[in-house]
Amino acid sequence: MKVLVLNGPNLNMLGRREPGIYGRATLDQIEEKVLELAGRLGAEVVFFQSNHEGDLVDRIHGADGTFDAVILNPGAFAHYSIAIRDAVASVSVPVVEVHISNVHAREDFRRRLVIAPVTAGVITGLGMDGYLLGLRAVVELVRKRAGE
Amino acid sequence: MKVLVLNGPNLNMLGRREPGIYGRATLDQIEEKVLELAGRLGAEVVFFQSNHEGDLVDRIHGADGTFDAVILNPGAFAHYSIAIRDAVASVSVPVVEVHISNVHAREDFRRRLVIAPVTAGVITGLGMDGYLLGLRAVVELVRKRAGE
Amino acid sequence: MKVLVLNGPNLNMLGRREPGIYGRATLDQIEEKVLELAGRLGAEVVFFQSNHEGDLVDRIHGADGTFDAVILNPGAFAHYSIAIRDAVASVSVPVVEVHISNVHAREDFRRRLVIAPVTAGVITGLGMDGYLLGLRAVVELVRKRAGE
Amino acid sequence: MKVLVLNGPNLNMLGRREPGIYGRATLDQIEEKVLELAGRLGAEVVFFQSNHEGDLVDRIHGADGTFDAVILNPGAFAHYSIAIRDAVASVSVPVVEVHISNVHAREDFRRRLVIAPVTAGVITGLGMDGYLLGLRAVVELVRKRAGE
Amino acid sequence: MKVLVLNGPNLNMLGRREPGIYGRATLDQIEEKVLELAGRLGAEVVFFQSNHEGDLVDRIHGADGTFDAVILNPGAFAHYSIAIRDAVASVSVPVVEVHISNVHAREDFRRRLVIAPVTAGVITGLGMDGYLLGLRAVVELVRKRAGE
Amino acid sequence: MKVLVLNGPNLNMLGRREPGIYGRATLDQIEEKVLELAGRLGAEVVFFQSNHEGDLVDRIHGADGTFDAVILNPGAFAHYSIAIRDAVASVSVPVVEVHISNVHAREDFRRRLVIAPVTAGVITGLGMDGYLLGLRAVVELVRKRAGE
Amino acid sequence: MKVLVLNGPNLNMLGRREPGIYGRATLDQIEEKVLELAGRLGAEVVFFQSNHEGDLVDRIHGADGTFDAVILNPGAFAHYSIAIRDAVASVSVPVVEVHISNVHAREDFRRRLVIAPVTAGVITGLGMDGYLLGLRAVVELVRKRAGE
Amino acid sequence: MKVLVLNGPNLNMLGRREPGIYGRATLDQIEEKVLELAGRLGAEVVFFQSNHEGDLVDRIHGADGTFDAVILNPGAFAHYSIAIRDAVASVSVPVVEVHISNVHAREDFRRRLVIAPVTAGVITGLGMDGYLLGLRAVVELVRKRAGE
Amino acid sequence: MKVLVLNGPNLNMLGRREPGIYGRATLDQIEEKVLELAGRLGAEVVFFQSNHEGDLVDRIHGADGTFDAVILNPGAFAHYSIAIRDAVASVSVPVVEVHISNVHAREDFRRRLVIAPVTAGVITGLGMDGYLLGLRAVVELVRKRAGE
Amino acid sequence: MKVLVLNGPNLNMLGRREPGIYGRATLDQIEEKVLELAGRLGAEVVFFQSNHEGDLVDRIHGADGTFDAVILNPGAFAHYSIAIRDAVASVSVPVVEVHISNVHAREDFRRRLVIAPVTAGVITGLGMDGYLLGLRAVVELVRKRAGE
Amino acid sequence: MKVLVLNGPNLNMLGRREPGIYGRATLDQIEEKVLELAGRLGAEVVFFQSNHEGDLVDRIHGADGTFDAVILNPGAFAHYSIAIRDAVASVSVPVVEVHISNVHAREDFRRRLVIAPVTAGVITGLGMDGYLLGLRAVVELVRKRAGE
Amino acid sequence: MKVLVLNGPNLNMLGRREPGIYGRATLDQIEEKVLELAGRLGAEVVFFQSNHEGDLVDRIHGADGTFDAVILNPGAFAHYSIAIRDAVASVSVPVVEVHISNVHAREDFRRRLVIAPVTAGVITGLGMDGYLLGLRAVVELVRKRAGE
Repeated sequence: MKVLVLNGPNLNMLGRREPGIYGRATLDQIEEKVLELAGRLGAEVVFFQSNHEGDLVDRIHGADGTFDAVILNPGAFAHYSIAIRDAVASVSVPVVEVHISNVHAREDFRRRLVIAPVTAGVITGLGMDGYLLGLRAVVELVRKRAGE
Repeated sequence: MKVLVLNGPNLNMLGRREPGIYGRATLDQIEEKVLELAGRLGAEVVFFQSNHEGDLVDRIHGADGTFDAVILNPGAFAHYSIAIRDAVASVSVPVVEVHISNVHAREDFRRRLVIAPVTAGVITGLGMDGYLLGLRAVVELVRKRAGE
Repeated sequence: MKVLVLNGPNLNMLGRREPGIYGRATLDQIEEKVLELAGRLGAEVVFFQSNHEGDLVDRIHGADGTFDAVILNPGAFAHYSIAIRDAVASVSVPVVEVHISNVHAREDFRRRLVIAPVTAGVITGLGMDGYLLGLRAVVELVRKRAGE
Repeated sequence: MKVLVLNGPNLNMLGRREPGIYGRATLDQIEEKVLELAGRLGAEVVFFQSNHEGDLVDRIHGADGTFDAVILNPGAFAHYSIAIRDAVASVSVPVVEVHISNVHAREDFRRRLVIAPVTAGVITGLGMDGYLLGLRAVVELVRKRAGE
Repeated sequence: MKVLVLNGPNLNMLGRREPGIYGRATLDQIEEKVLELAGRLGAEVVFFQSNHEGDLVDRIHGADGTFDAVILNPGAFAHYSIAIRDAVASVSVPVVEVHISNVHAREDFRRRLVIAPVTAGVITGLGMDGYLLGLRAVVELVRKRAGE
Repeated sequence: MKVLVLNGPNLNMLGRREPGIYGRATLDQIEEKVLELAGRLGAEVVFFQSNHEGDLVDRIHGADGTFDAVILNPGAFAHYSIAIRDAVASVSVPVVEVHISNVHAREDFRRRLVIAPVTAGVITGLGMDGYLLGLRAVVELVRKRAGE
Repeated sequence: MKVLVLNGPNLNMLGRREPGIYGRATLDQIEEKVLELAGRLGAEVVFFQSNHEGDLVDRIHGADGTFDAVILNPGAFAHYSIAIRDAVASVSVPVVEVHISNVHAREDFRRRLVIAPVTAGVITGLGMDGYLLGLRAVVELVRKRAGE
Repeated sequence: MKVLVLNGPNLNMLGRREPGIYGRATLDQIEEKVLELAGRLGAEVVFFQSNHEGDLVDRIHGADGTFDAVILNPGAFAHYSIAIRDAVASVSVPVVEVHISNVHAREDFRRRLVIAPVTAGVITGLGMDGYLLGLRAVVELVRKRAGE
Repeated sequence: MKVLVLNGPNLNMLGRREPGIYGRATLDQIEEKVLELAGRLGAEVVFFQSNHEGDLVDRIHGADGTFDAVILNPGAFAHYSIAIRDAVASVSVPVVEVHISNVHAREDFRRRLVIAPVTAGVITGLGMDGYLLGLRAVVELVRKRAGE
Repeated sequence: MKVLVLNGPNLNMLGRREPGIYGRATLDQIEEKVLELAGRLGAEVVFFQSNHEGDLVDRIHGADGTFDAVILNPGAFAHYSIAIRDAVASVSVPVVEVHISNVHAREDFRRRLVIAPVTAGVITGLGMDGYLLGLRAVVELVRKRAGE
Repeated sequence: MKVLVLNGPNLNMLGRREPGIYGRATLDQIEEKVLELAGRLGAEVVFFQSNHEGDLVDRIHGADGTFDAVILNPGAFAHYSIAIRDAVASVSVPVVEVHISNVHAREDFRRRLVIAPVTAGVITGLGMDGYLLGLRAVVELVRKRAGE
Repeated sequence: MKVLVLNGPNLNMLGRREPGIYGRATLDQIEEKVLELAGRLGAEVVFFQSNHEGDLVDRIHGADGTFDAVILNPGAFAHYSIAIRDAVASVSVPVVEVHISNVHAREDFRRRLVIAPVTAGVITGLGMDGYLLGLRAVVELVRKRAGE
């Protein structure tokens, strides 16, 4: 099973960026943890981070047929990128959306989730664990689909 | 570690209720799966379901000091029960909110999550697995807090 | 044919409560009239009134399989109880919503009918007669469904 | 007792028009059913259908003094014709508004009912039966007013 | 003179609950202070707290004819319970609404007061003193009405 | 100088219609007063009333080149007829809008004036006198334009 | 008959201020025309202009009992001064509101008229003539009231 | 192939009406151009213009079964006529909506297109050419449907 | 203890102004009652009323350091004067806001309280008693602060 | 005549992406059809597709002076890219906007067209034919401008 | 070159007022700094502060012809004083608006800037330096205009 | 002191792009002026312009630790790029936002400034001078911070 973990804008700044909101773990540390769990779950994981909306769209397209699932933390794009929404809707690979912070508890504009309606599900507020739970979620999703 | 799993209105109808949206698993089956995982994670789980807002408020109060964490699927109350929101805010036990369906992909009024801002995090759209991920999430949360 | 007539909050105050809006008939008098018509239409009617949202949810669940139809006057819950909406959506028994007053002619918040979209139909403004028309409506609905 | 049944735009298309929403009965069949019930209730009924807002306004004016009640299905005009609203408000003959489909369950703009606040009551979602219930309602209304 | 003091959801948590917002006084301490003042003012006071909307509706109905006034802290229900609003409107006993915190200075949804328009008046932000002022207010109201 | 006085829907009901709002003068009486003033001001006046939006559009088109000014009471169309707005904008003859009642003091939807932005001016709330003031206004307007 | 003509903020700048919108007549020239008409109508007119909201409130209070009518051009205050609205509502002298420009045809915020609902009527867009028509309107209003 | 070209209110004023927005071509000139292209494409075209909403509804009904396609410029009705929307939805003949001006670049209310959602497509802003493109579009649509 | 009682626009009209809403007591009578209670509570009270927003701002500034508390009835300014809000926020003396009428039960715009969020608390709807309760409230506030 | 056909995000997925909405034609097939028509119309066409907003902005800038017209399908950017809007506004080359699906008939957020107000016109809902009509439109536009 | 520096309500409290937001500099200190820079730039500066909207309107009128530019910190009036907006629009002297705090980062109502659209430009968030930058800006503006 | 001047989309078109709004200066000319002033102020300035949101995010990240301050003209991104907002919030280098045109005086959507709340301040409407003032502002900011 191959899983693509896509991280959007500013997530390269994790650890340095507003640690009161996002915690002190860096993206590298998160990837390490994800890899470790992936090993235990028998999944292969590829990571990609970009601050460019178009790159994320390209990668989502590229995941179709080459990955079994996508874990997507769209960062700020979650709130306005209809282009990424359409990209997710245009592929058949299942996507689970993850947010480190509890977006429901922050500025009003962060309550608008434009990509979420076309994902399989959303995990918010659980910090770095969100990625691990997301990995478990997609592994389960793929297994269920395969079992049908 | 003791975990309370609270289910709100209409969740007693799971399996029978709009299976296209909520799936065919009954609440009993979900509880069985949760118990099984709880056993593996070394957690004790108590279940409670009610269609009465006041009962849920009472139980959240009661969980303070007697449980280490709460997994809350508030059902429809997620969208308007400020009383439950205030109950969650009034206790120190961490609460993770779970929704079986992807509330972001349904009617507009389901996008308003009034309890979510005072929870630790939210998991939506992942069906029965949402409870299992929620259990993992609270176990992790409690361990981290204990470790501090 | 068995019909459940459910009345929500404050309808126990009928006759005493703001008679300029709700008229002078008491709930007992309405029930008497409904029983009389039911007799003529060959229907058996059970009445239940509660000021508790959860009780109404419970009764709607309970009506599934035991009643052929429900006449529901949700009172104020019509305007915000998504829990009752979901209860109606979770059962297969047809529900007709009745309001004594013309909710469209009152405060703005009474124009929002959150349960109505999942009912078979709505009758408003016709006073006590609304229940009698509602009874005729559900008798007809049940007969048509049976005839299919 | 004389009753005017007014049908607004596109109701001449009944039976042919979106039968999934409006059913397969034609306006002629509805009128037949209404006449039959009117006979039993001792009422005389006149039918008029028009796609022209001004015609409906004219007829409502004309009903004042010549009819005892009006059953009005304003069709799409229900949602924006303040002219028809004002016409209803300008006459003393009671008007009951009927909609074949459950307007609360459709597009957002169909939830705005601009005429309803000045009618005696509204019946929606009960198909062809709505007219029959409307007839019973106005017969009852007229009798009550006469009895005062 | 008999006065009913009704407290809504989460007020049983006073003292423990978010003391930065609600202060450190418990409901027992407030009741003690109210009783003391009531003694001085020659009023008899009964207290009732519930987290159940329906219980509050029932009690408001029950107060009609048995109490001279009601002091109501509806808690979170202040912001959405049209059922309680209708209960207050359905009785002739005067109701004064009290809030411990300054609801105007908090989240936007707390600025919507749905019960307030049918009360005699509202006192907010003055902490435990709000109940004492509320008691003075209803005593004065009742005396004025009696004097007419 | 030739002036067209156009009256929209329900104005034929003046005197009979909601006299608390519109007064007891009939349209005939208003026309008589307008004619009398017109005589004094040396203007020729033609009257037209219709409940049909299309008729009003036709007449506004027809006034271009044949009348020097139009006094328009669009009735309810003032609030939604963009067709009449566009008709007024499509002709060069000046139009003054008149309303008998104070539309700003009534329902919210009457505060939206869609035709007003393309008229020369608006007179509201002054009853029958509004037409007389409107006549004076257009006579003055025409004289000023002619004097340029 | 005594009439007070009140002009609000920036009307002292007439003639100089945005002549494309407000014309080239100065306030002095308008007052001259009003005086001339007042002479013909047998009315005594007093003028007052201020850029201070409180001065206008004071003058409206002072007009009660000393003037028979007020012509009020509130300028920008028309769009937000609830204080002036309450002042107009607090006196029994009739007030007619006048605007030189067509406020309906300008910025959105100028469509909100907060004082208008408590005036007798509003005249907009007719330039300097608005004051003359306003004078005729109040003279007529006072005569009608006197005749009752 | 038979095509009906329906023009709504004020389009009879083309050439005379606000030429800065609508251009200088008259409706006759447009019809001539359409006829010429229709000849080349082998289509028969009938034209109808009305300022009456009801006439347009009638014609749309009448087109069902007698025409292969409709080109509809609803003029101002595009922004509020739900009656025409329902007429289009009630027939099976395909409808393409055309606007001469770029409605997206004008007043806010012109951005609301209530008929467009039930048409096959919309062409705006391209002046007289919009009709020619519309004709090509419907010819193509009809051919594709026939080819299935 | 020194208390400043500030009254805003139109409160000089009390007793004369809309007595159905504001009661028949004049401001003088209210002041008398307040003085009497102040005597009993050992407080010194100064009164100031103005229809000028700037005067109220000046007085609030002036109260800082010279008064122990302010009772503020901002009248209509409650709904839009951000200047007064900022004045209250700029001083350290505690302010309690009082309204004679129940502002929550009146026009929609009176539900917006822009000053209230920076006050200590708000008392509405209790008529003249609101000032007496306000006095008790500030006396209590000052004592508590002094006791810290 | 040189025409640039710009396609925005996800249009590279045509044929694969939600064929129920976008049809089964691929972008290559569309380009082929456009080239064929361009040949007949004597136009030279260049194609460019990108999922990157910045690339589209760059290309629009680059088209100024090198192309005679642009056909732009901005995809999802149509609904939020003010940057592309400003790019179109910053160049003098005419732009026609094309959408394959009927954006007016889909989610609410697709009705907001932020680029459209600065284009020459918009064609929506006509599938692949939209490009062909767009080509005809720009050819005609360029010829008209050249003829001036 | 003569420059008027106008400060609105509560700016006299600078230094004392919410120093976390507005800093610790007093208005006197700001004026000193401005004078010093003005000396270096060869400008003469006059200061005026008032808590009265009308005073600010008067001063803006008075600046026309006597000053070359105005630096205006309208304080809270920035968010609602249409009177000041109209005053600025009524004079030809250029006005630059300055805010000490970053109004975009505070309460929602501070994001509405009603005067800004008629100023030459706005400087916010830069504390006392805003006035110095504003002085440089107007000096530059005046020089450019003079150079034309 | 090192300052980064970042320009967003379409600013490369300055001088050519809508000169009525943006003036005739090119970006090169602005940079020249900025360099000249920087020389006088002892600052080193680096310029970067991009039409790509991601590039701007990258550069803001890159400025952290390598520059002392950023002057950011986000162009159209000011109104919707939450990604750039988050980038600014994720770095500790101070950012001043500059707009050439007065964004408050243009389309409604330009009044929404999503990046501004996390900047140190905003300068709008002052043309090319905005950059020079921005440079002075950041030089002052950096000096003050250094002085602490």
